[in-house]
Parts: sequence; structure tokens; C-alpha cells
Amino acid sequence: MKRIYFDHAAATPLHPQVLDAMLPYLKEEFGNPSSLHSFGQSAKGAIEEARAKVAELINARTDEIIFTSSGTESDNFALKGIALRHQEKGKHIISSPIEHYAVLHSLKTLEKWDFKVTLVPVDKYGLVDPQDVAKAITEETTLISIMHANNEIGTIEPIAEIGKIAKERDIIFHCDAVASAGVIPVDVVEMGVNALSLSAYQFYGPKGVGALYLKKGTRITPLLNGGIQEEGRRPGIENVAGIVGLGKAAELAKNEMEERIKHLASLRDKIISELPKRIDHLYLNGHPTQRLPHNINVSIEYIEGESMLLFLDQKGIAAASGSACTSRALKASHILTAIGVDAATAQGSLLFSLGIDNTEEEVDYLLDTLPPIVERLRQMSPLYKP
Amino acid sequence: MKRIYFDHAAATPLHPQVLDAMLPYLKEEFGNPSSLHSFGQSAKGAIEEARAKVAELINARTDEIIFTSSGTESDNFALKGIALRHQEKGKHIISSPIEHYAVLHSLKTLEKWDFKVTLVPVDKYGLVDPQDVAKAITEETTLISIMHANNEIGTIEPIAEIGKIAKERDIIFHCDAVASAGVIPVDVVEMGVNALSLSAYQFYGPKGVGALYLKKGTRITPLLNGGIQEEGRRPGIENVAGIVGLGKAAELAKNEMEERIKHLASLRDKIISELPKRIDHLYLNGHPTQRLPHNINVSIEYIEGESMLLFLDQKGIAAASGSACTSRALKASHILTAIGVDAATAQGSLLFSLGIDNTEEEVDYLLDTLPPIVERLRQMSPLYKP
Repeated sequence: MKRIYFDHAAATPLHPQVLDAMLPYLKEEFGNPSSLHSFGQSAKGAIEEARAKVAELINARTDEIIFTSSGTESDNFALKGIALRHQEKGKHIISSPIEHYAVLHSLKTLEKWDFKVTLVPVDKYGLVDPQDVAKAITEETTLISIMHANNEIGTIEPIAEIGKIAKERDIIFHCDAVASAGVIPVDVVEMGVNALSLSAYQFYGPKGVGALYLKKGTRITPLLNGGIQEEGRRPGIENVAGIVGLGKAAELAKNEMEERIKHLASLRDKIISELPKRIDHLYLNGHPTQRLPHNINVSIEYIEGESMLLFLDQKGIAAASGSACTSRALKASHILTAIGVDAATAQGSLLFSLGIDNTEEEVDYLLDTLPPIVERLRQMSPLYKP
Repeated sequence: MKRIYFDHAAATPLHPQVLDAMLPYLKEEFGNPSSLHSFGQSAKGAIEEARAKVAELINARTDEIIFTSSGTESDNFALKGIALRHQEKGKHIISSPIEHYAVLHSLKTLEKWDFKVTLVPVDKYGLVDPQDVAKAITEETTLISIMHANNEIGTIEPIAEIGKIAKERDIIFHCDAVASAGVIPVDVVEMGVNALSLSAYQFYGPKGVGALYLKKGTRITPLLNGGIQEEGRRPGIENVAGIVGLGKAAELAKNEMEERIKHLASLRDKIISELPKRIDHLYLNGHPTQRLPHNINVSIEYIEGESMLLFLDQKGIAAASGSACTSRALKASHILTAIGVDAATAQGSLLFSLGIDNTEEEVDYLLDTLPPIVERLRQMSPLYKP
């Protein structure tokens, strides 16, 4: 059976060119970048080349990129590192309820450390209103953290407007761009952010490597202590092959972005327009237009998402019911809850996230396969009345 | 020119079998281990298999292994996570002055958080006296952290004796085994440790992945907050290929350890016995017998280590003057300082760390190449009197 993969938000396959770029650093070029001999110099050079490529992807300066092990680490580093570093100025942070758990749970830790956190509400599409952010600012506010695009419902937030407000009020602005960087344009200057998290595995790079953009002059307390790697801001031997892979993935994403977006959005729009015609009581979650080009999130009433996933898997289709990071927790998504989807309906949600290799044939197969699965499951549901 | 690599403490090449084990997870098996579909299940299975192999290497239970991004992260996680989790019981930590900076600098951070740290002295070989540890214990002591083997001078510490003391006094014992795990036998039960750090790249595994052994029942505060990976103790998408590589490297290390040690120790002993015959004013640093089988660390008076390294590099030999993590800092090694080597002599130190692929011919080449370099450099030194 052919396997069709519609879960690119959970993980993307490595681009073959990314693997090719990594392989020398998994073979003969194995030096420690901190070593002064030729093995080390070669690894060091590769890292700096990758840094330049990541910087270019997001319109940053090369020295503003710090490599980490994941988007989660970047978020933890940014939130805790910036909050702690500036705590003498104030201990109030503004964020939103639809952030990734890497942000929300870092904020919980900060609350234990006596920080105050305000989560501004989102509307039914998951949009933050910049004016709500402005209103939430107090004398104590040192940090705002709002995600660029939501990993589950695909909604793209008005980051540049929030960035303007943050700048006017002289507050540090962090943006979790893990779901968007490498997928849609990310420009740290236009967005007006001081810090931004991204992760390679979201755009055909390897797992186990991410980056934190930190605007020059933004002070931060390191999360990890140790050696002098990354100017002492992120010690530990560098994941050289991973970093090289991130660099190559960033380069490809930048070069191919327009074309990728066009392809993905056309498949996405076909699914979004066709599914409601074939399945009743089906609703799109997230914003209809301000949306990641590869994201489709729907709630299907009177049905369990988990069961649909199992039946889809049997038919060779890999999809998700929410973010992979929480899939085993079997709780209703905090994101769907925040946009007002009731718990029962949230349980019947499906997340399809497309990739650059997906084809129209695969989409057609999905459109033909899902309706009978829904039909069959609903016949077993006592609640469903056609 | 043939390149000869004698800097395995800085980084080891990937074992070809390790790369082979990793490749499927860099190609078709790209799923997110948290995903419920077949792509995810496959990745999840691979991680659990690797976990079992790492556990077996150190005689731990499978559920006692937490994967991290590096030994540095493992050390930070253990020290900060355990100290914070038990701070209501006390805020005193015992360690040694020859620990890796990942430990020493984590301790500095803990001091900022009002913890008290006692560094017990080491003797001229870098050995900790377990009785010094016992004497340093107070009512407030909650954590002892002593490394298994020193990464620069190779000295192996009496961990089991310290473990006994820690157990008697009911104090949590962490051991940084980054330099030793996968190189010499590490048995967490015999050593009596509650936590132990290790890193794949020290034993022919990939960079960017490490592990923390945490004895069942040992409470810890996570360093990173986010999703539910690693039972919520270490969130962020797993570096699947890296973890698989660590598992395979652990398996190979366990199976081949005896043979590897024999080979390495014979080359090491040849260098240690021959060098002083060919170069005067040369002294071995570290313990003469309780020593990592691949470690040779010598101080050569009236000479600069950096210059020797550059000349060696020109002759195709890669070596180090200290740990790679600090090599760019150009300071005298804190480890040599702690064992009483004066600053000038410490500057003239060389660290050769052997690998399983090194040959006797390569050792002979080193023994022939180094003396004329030393001779030439000393002729330029105003201090040297033959």
C-alpha cells in the first residue's frame, strides 16, 4: 500500500539535498568546531556558512543567529533568558492562549518564579488583536511573546503591528516562528521582533536542531552553562551535521518559497473547498485566508478524531488530530478550546498538513477516502442524526 | 598528506555502522515519534530500542534513560534540575575543581540562586579523596557531583567509594561520565550514582545527542518546558536519527569495549613511555595508571602548546592543548591549574586522545615528528637552557 503523508506539521522528510549537504559532516568532516586543527576549522567553517543561510532566510544579521537543539529549546531560552535578564526592570509578560506548550509551559515556570503573565484573548479564528496587547502593557511589562503562525489551526498573526506597539513601548518582543519559518516569508526587521524561534524539521531539515534569532543588543541569560560555543550563549558541542542541514534547508526554503507556497495553497484550497461538500457538519478551524499554505484543520461533529486517524492510517493516509507534541496526551487541544470549539467537537478534529511532495492525486484520494470513513463511524455514534 | 587524528576527546568520527543505523531515519523513516500513525510509531519504536541499548551500556533500566542534546545539557539538567527540586531540603552542593565547565558553570548559576558550593581539592594526579567528600557534607547538602574520568588529564575518580558515602548520608550523587561512558566500563549500580551524564560523540556516535541516566525515584525539575516527550522531563521533538546513532554506538561500545581498551592502552603506553625519552623537561599530567585508555596529557616546559599544535597540524597531526570546549579561550586549563601545574608550564601542554582506528605506525610517526618540533620551538625561546 502506498503511504500518503499529510502530517508535515508533525515532521517533514529531509530534503535529499539537505541530506547530501549533511553527509560529509557525518563522515570525514567529523571535527569539533572548537578545535584549532584542520578538522576543527572545517567544521567551524561549515557552521558559519549555515549561520549565514539561516540569517538570510529571516533577514537577520549572521551574528544574530544562535543554534539550539529545537524550537522548544529556542522558546525556553528566549522566554526564560530574556525574562530573567530583565527582571529588575519588571516581571510582567504578555502572551496568548494559543501558543505552543514550549511557550505556555515556560510561562508557567516563570509564574513559579514570581513573574506575572497576561494571556490576551484570541478571536474565533485564533487572531490576536494588537490593541489587546497594547492594553495589557503595564509599567512592569518586559516581554511580549506571540507566535507567528499557529501550528494547529494555521492562523497567521498580525506580528508587524504587535512589533510596532512593542517598539513604541520599548518592550522586548519574542515571536515563536517554528510553524512558519521556512514555510512563509519571515522578516525579522519587518516584523519588528527582538527574538524569534525556528526549527529545521518544519521545513525539510533535520530533527534535533533549531535556532534563536536574537537582535543585536538584546540581553539574555543563557539557559545552559558550559563552554564557549555560540559566544558562550549556548554551550555544548555543536550538532555540526544538523546545523549544516538547517542551513541547507533554509537556503532551499528561501529559493523555492514562492513556488512551494503556490503548490501547497492550491492543494489546501481544494481540500478546504471540497471537504464540506462531501461531509456534513464539518467546519474549518482557523482563519479562512490568513493561513499557512499547508494547513487544513477541520472539526467533524459527532465523531472521534482518533478513530478517524486509525481508519485513515489503515488506508495509508497519515494525518493528525492536533499537534504531535500533545497527541499522546489525549486532551482536547488547548488551541481549539481557546477559539471557542466545544470539547466534544474538538475531539472530532483533523489536522492535515501538506508537503512539497504531495500531489493532487493524493489529495483526490483523501477526498474520496475520508467521507466513507466518517459515514461509517457516525453510524456507530448514538448522537448523530443525519 | 595523510591526516592523523589524535583528538578523539574533542570529537570521534561516526562509526560506519552507526551511520548505517541512522540513515533510514534521515530518509524514509522521518515520522515524529509522538504521531500516532505508522510513520510516528516506527520512529517511536526506534527510540525505545536505542533507549534499551544505552541502558544496557551502563547497567541501567530502560526507563531511567532520558535523551538530551548533549553532555552539557545533561549536566545542566542534572545539577539545576536536582538542586532546584530538592532546595527545600537544603542548598549545599559538593563538587570538584576539575569538573567540566558544564558542571562548574552550572554551579556558578546555582550560586547566584543562593546555593552554596564546596569544591573538594584534588591531588597532583587529579584524584578526589572520598574522605574529603565525606567531610564536606553538611545538613544542607543535597547533591554531590563528581566526574567519572577527567576529559583532559584522563584520571579516573573513585566513584564507587563516593557513591557509598552519598548513599549512607542519603545525598543524591550525580556523575559526569561524558569522558568515560562508552570508553571504559560504566555501571551505575556499582558506582552508586543517582544521575549520570553521557554523550554520543565521545564514543563514535553523532554530535547533538546525549543522555541523562536518572535512577528511578530521583525527582528532578525539567530544564525545558513544553510537550510530553521523554515523559515530560525533556520536551522538544526527538532527534530520532541522533538517538538511534547513540543507541548503536552504545551497543558497539559494549560489545567491543575490551578489545578497544586493549588496543588504545597499548598505543597510549607506548607514547607515555617513549616521549620522555625523546623530549626532556616533559611531564605526564594525570594519574599514571588510573587513567582513560586513550588519554595522554603532557606538559613540555619552555614552550607554547599552541605553537606545537600548529606545527603538528602542518605535519598532518591533529592534537589539542586542552579540552576543545575551551581551546578558543586561550586561558590556562583550570584542570592543570587545579593539579598544581604552574601557568607557564600549563601553556606548554599537549593532549593526545587516541581512537580505535589509530595505528602503531601513526604513533611512531608522532614519536618521530614531535621531538624536532619541540627542539625548533625551544631554540626560539629565551627561557630554554638545555
